[in-house]
Amino acid sequence: MAIEFRVLKESTDCSARIGELKTPHGVIETPVFMPVGTKATVKTMTPEEVRDLGAQIILSNTYHLYLRPGHKLIEEAGGLHKFMNWHKPILTDSGGFQVFSLSDLRKITEDGVEFRSHIDGSTHFLSPEKSIEIQNSLGADIIMCFDECVPYPAEYEYVKKSMERTTRWAKRCKDYHQNWDRQALFGIIQGGMYKDLREKSVKDILDIGFPGYAIGGLSVGEPIDIMCDMLDFTAPMLPKDKPRYLMGVGSPDYLFEAVIRGIDMADCVLPTRIARNGTVMTSQGKLTIRNAKYKNDFSSLDPECDCYTCTNYTRAYIRHLFNVNEILGARLATIHNLYFLIKLMENIREAIKEDRLMEYREEFYKKYGYI
Amino acid sequence: MAIEFRVLKESTDCSARIGELKTPHGVIETPVFMPVGTKATVKTMTPEEVRDLGAQIILSNTYHLYLRPGHKLIEEAGGLHKFMNWHKPILTDSGGFQVFSLSDLRKITEDGVEFRSHIDGSTHFLSPEKSIEIQNSLGADIIMCFDECVPYPAEYEYVKKSMERTTRWAKRCKDYHQNWDRQALFGIIQGGMYKDLREKSVKDILDIGFPGYAIGGLSVGEPIDIMCDMLDFTAPMLPKDKPRYLMGVGSPDYLFEAVIRGIDMADCVLPTRIARNGTVMTSQGKLTIRNAKYKNDFSSLDPECDCYTCTNYTRAYIRHLFNVNEILGARLATIHNLYFLIKLMENIREAIKEDRLMEYREEFYKKYGYI
Repeated sequence: MAIEFRVLKESTDCSARIGELKTPHGVIETPVFMPVGTKATVKTMTPEEVRDLGAQIILSNTYHLYLRPGHKLIEEAGGLHKFMNWHKPILTDSGGFQVFSLSDLRKITEDGVEFRSHIDGSTHFLSPEKSIEIQNSLGADIIMCFDECVPYPAEYEYVKKSMERTTRWAKRCKDYHQNWDRQALFGIIQGGMYKDLREKSVKDILDIGFPGYAIGGLSVGEPIDIMCDMLDFTAPMLPKDKPRYLMGVGSPDYLFEAVIRGIDMADCVLPTRIARNGTVMTSQGKLTIRNAKYKNDFSSLDPECDCYTCTNYTRAYIRHLFNVNEILGARLATIHNLYFLIKLMENIREAIKEDRLMEYREEFYKKYGYI
Repeated sequence: MAIEFRVLKESTDCSARIGELKTPHGVIETPVFMPVGTKATVKTMTPEEVRDLGAQIILSNTYHLYLRPGHKLIEEAGGLHKFMNWHKPILTDSGGFQVFSLSDLRKITEDGVEFRSHIDGSTHFLSPEKSIEIQNSLGADIIMCFDECVPYPAEYEYVKKSMERTTRWAKRCKDYHQNWDRQALFGIIQGGMYKDLREKSVKDILDIGFPGYAIGGLSVGEPIDIMCDMLDFTAPMLPKDKPRYLMGVGSPDYLFEAVIRGIDMADCVLPTRIARNGTVMTSQGKLTIRNAKYKNDFSSLDPECDCYTCTNYTRAYIRHLFNVNEILGARLATIHNLYFLIKLMENIREAIKEDRLMEYREEFYKKYGYI
């Protein structure tokens, strides 16, 4: 098997746990936040910078890399790790989320999804088998089943049909996957906001059997309470000895709530995306650096932060960079935001080890302005 | 005085020389190429990256920093070095080139230039005194007289009038300058492509007297032969014991030709600008990385280069980054181009020391494809 997972400690006051996930490209301490490098680069960053922030694993994207530069080219280059010069673990998602998001440009059948490229309108077909073929070429340590992530809100009947198809596709993904020795294929639980469908999905996906399980279809626009409720219901049904990955979660509160409910892995474009728009997360909450009040502010983005950006630059300088559209602005904000979340996860792991995660959450929420 | 300059060695087969320029923020080995950081950042780069490439001094821009974020803000921040986190020498140009380039948006009088901001159309006035005031606030190690850089071609009468005004303005700059102990003010020779005007300009600017001299108004579109001819005529009239700065030169051939004629300093946006468009300089000539033929090319940009980019990335990957508009592409190309020119100048200095600059030029030109 490509991966080995061990739970090292469980919290006594919540379902959080500390784990160790061994992959062909290194060991990951969980719970972990995974920065996203959609197109074979974490936007604005070199791989060394991402590594030096403490990132243990990054995500990349099947749909985007299939279209450009093409998975065969990346295979020819020696795989995604070598192509992009990132030598730690990688997880690729299946492309399902992207092709289903194309709405008018795609047609779903039992076989798969026919879609038109968002770049040049050319027609393509992605199926469970094709997604796995692409992911086998890319060579990530962890790869994902081709699934449909249902939007919120959605009708019961639609979610049911979609979830059942996702299950059938999961079976086809497992049957088609080649490189079990060096790529772990994760199953994905769907079922929208309907508990009976979530329960059925968990049962069927566990029956197929995977080395890890993701919970998909959450953090898609539903209120945080509903997400928490669905996690409370779903996570305990997953086997304790397998990693649990909550897809698409990256704000501090969502990360806390997920970890508390037993999630080991999460990813999101949020920290990098908002950084490029000049929004940064700080220990005192979010801050929009373009704001005029920072013009003469010679303090750092976050006085409690010791990242490269906060050690060397003032709000006034970073605001100037954004004002005059200099790329260094996006770089400095990205460094800070990724560091902020990676450090937050470190602190969360520390708090779990010391059995005070619920306390730490309370402190953090107060300071950040969530409560 | 803010600077000390010493010639350490002169070539026997040309007018090239090795020098040492001491400034308040460090010693510069000349001849030197100065990367440009127009808006208080060398585009796409952190200061540490620029330093690690071997850059000894960077340029920044009075006009741009006056408009945004404002020189008073930078003064309040502790000066430009501190504001942008660059602790080696800086040279600021006077803003003259930029305001004169505004053509329809500016009005020239003996007093100075009234102009409208290219950003919001607001009206401003830049004069010799104002330019020096701004440059005193910014605090660069070397600052420049406010001058007019005449375009090519230009009528004799216009160039004469402009050169004479530039001389009168140089006097006013010298009179107004405050910080002689920590900022060296350079005079600028003008006179277009007319030798008698160049001669007069040299005489008058030398009469005023400055710790260093720039040659302006070359590399403005004239054929390289004319530039060389003007340099052959002008450079020997400048005092040997003062640094000579050729403004706006940054292609390998122009740098060679300048150094051979006794130039000690040069700057240009060329390497950083073409990098962001995906053009790189290599030992075998220029290369446009977006070109389809590099799609499957897994060699480095320049097989003879040992920069970060060439050590870690393939043409195929860098082409992919440009194709999908990823910022890392511009970063990697910028790193390579700056390193290429900085390394070239290192090699040029080495060649001067070993009295074989003319030979080295021949070798380089053949390989690069100039001859």
